[in-house]
Amino acid sequence: MHQPERVSLREVAPRDGLQNEPPVPAADKIRLIDALARTGLSRIEAVSFVSPKAVPQMADAAEVWAAVEKHPGIRYSALAPNRRGVERALDAGFTAVEVVVSASETHNKANIGRSVAESLAELPDICALAKERLAAIEVIIATSFGCPFEGDIAPAKVARIVEAAQEAGAGRVAFGDTTGMGTPRRVTELLDAVQPSAGPDLPMLMHFHDTRGTALANLLTALDRGITEFDASVGGIGGCPFAPGASGNVATEEVVHMLHDMGVDTGVDLDALIRTAELAQEIVGRPLESGVLRAGPRTSLTPRP
Amino acid sequence: MHQPERVSLREVAPRDGLQNEPPVPAADKIRLIDALARTGLSRIEAVSFVSPKAVPQMADAAEVWAAVEKHPGIRYSALAPNRRGVERALDAGFTAVEVVVSASETHNKANIGRSVAESLAELPDICALAKERLAAIEVIIATSFGCPFEGDIAPAKVARIVEAAQEAGAGRVAFGDTTGMGTPRRVTELLDAVQPSAGPDLPMLMHFHDTRGTALANLLTALDRGITEFDASVGGIGGCPFAPGASGNVATEEVVHMLHDMGVDTGVDLDALIRTAELAQEIVGRPLESGVLRAGPRTSLTPRP
Repeated sequence: MHQPERVSLREVAPRDGLQNEPPVPAADKIRLIDALARTGLSRIEAVSFVSPKAVPQMADAAEVWAAVEKHPGIRYSALAPNRRGVERALDAGFTAVEVVVSASETHNKANIGRSVAESLAELPDICALAKERLAAIEVIIATSFGCPFEGDIAPAKVARIVEAAQEAGAGRVAFGDTTGMGTPRRVTELLDAVQPSAGPDLPMLMHFHDTRGTALANLLTALDRGITEFDASVGGIGGCPFAPGASGNVATEEVVHMLHDMGVDTGVDLDALIRTAELAQEIVGRPLESGVLRAGPRTSLTPRP
Repeated sequence: MHQPERVSLREVAPRDGLQNEPPVPAADKIRLIDALARTGLSRIEAVSFVSPKAVPQMADAAEVWAAVEKHPGIRYSALAPNRRGVERALDAGFTAVEVVVSASETHNKANIGRSVAESLAELPDICALAKERLAAIEVIIATSFGCPFEGDIAPAKVARIVEAAQEAGAGRVAFGDTTGMGTPRRVTELLDAVQPSAGPDLPMLMHFHDTRGTALANLLTALDRGITEFDASVGGIGGCPFAPGASGNVATEEVVHMLHDMGVDTGVDLDALIRTAELAQEIVGRPLESGVLRAGPRTSLTPRP
């Protein structure tokens, strides 16, 4: 199996994680983002600019972002569902914005209240606006590996959104396993469909949930296919809104733990990351499910009997 | 990546699972084994013959085994730590026995109260005894991927135990990831060390715990290297005695779910297996952590909004 020398991780706990937990105070969000910034992570999705009515957890996005320490080596980003959100993110000072659109019609409607065509139609304008403001746009394609309402999503459908994103001028794409339906097979089939038409120069990221235990197997499959960018959430925080009680995002410390053991560099200090997972656990106020948080890394030994 | 047409799973919840849970009545064990037998599983590790003082959970092994339905298509087995246990298993009527020995000196001492050399010295006699009684012996090498007391275990050490098992006349070996220290790298390194000297004819099985989220990534790595036999525990029952609160064995339904999605046959009815995981949950009386049990398989859709 192929493995790269280095993998780039984007930490999404402050946004994707906390957006799917009961609301927490802005001060806790700031504390979490600043702690993450000191672990060696080079990319952090900090907040989203969405409707405060639909997502009260992110109503204080601008306030949080204003107070966060801005580490020069870190690429902070915000997520937005539409042009209005992108504008707010740019106005708040972000230079990297993720725009989300679902491969599934039903999920796009449920998630951001419009059709896929409507989302795509806005993309060229969003990309032009970002270019004008010297910012970068990534298109996150939600439900890339399956939709909780529609079931399997044809990889060709995802490929068409990638093409639309490229034509609109987006510099990057991400594939979201929104409800943990991804499996090694789905990763392979998606890349079979997407890589030939997208070409080798479009940066691609994968975002896995560990809802059904496959997150690290998916990641390994993606590595073997040349993908070197992944989202992860410290402590695995963030649920799966359509699978109550199920675990959410793959835990950053589980990803780092496996990659470092393989000799793949991430730039992250695993011990500092585990301490930050403990902070995340304290902030959300429930025991988190990350195995590396609970059991410690494989190098943490038990005293001999 | 290479994938086989078929994988053979051995269900270990009745033994490895329940051995690491608070004791449950014999009737529940019988109910669980019989329910597992109706899912299409072809191998079940039913009980162990160990010291009832050290492991009260298995004190009723002979009673449980006497009452279990014996399905002709299923290979039932028992685990034993020594010659005395093997004798008890044979006397109870088992024709397949797993003898456990650790690759780690410290763990073997803690687990079965003797040195690795003492365990290995008994093997030829055990294999001769089994042969006489027309039974098969498998040697399970615990801590094959790391020891909670000693840390990394040199793969060459595991390879020497495989050689000793072959010389003694054992027909099969299994590699136990006793406390979830296995990773894709460790699987690869172990097979690099073991496969050349063992040769292609020795059946090998891998036993993973999902303590640190790597179980299915490990399994994928092993598949790619030609391994087609795995242990798994329905509902993921069974803890990790040296990592309190951590998840234990990889859940059978998570393994079957991923393999079927890949088009790999297991002979198991996933729906029946999930119902049996629900029974296991009822028996142990705590919410189990299997993602496929909690969220359902990826094919179980949410009603459209």
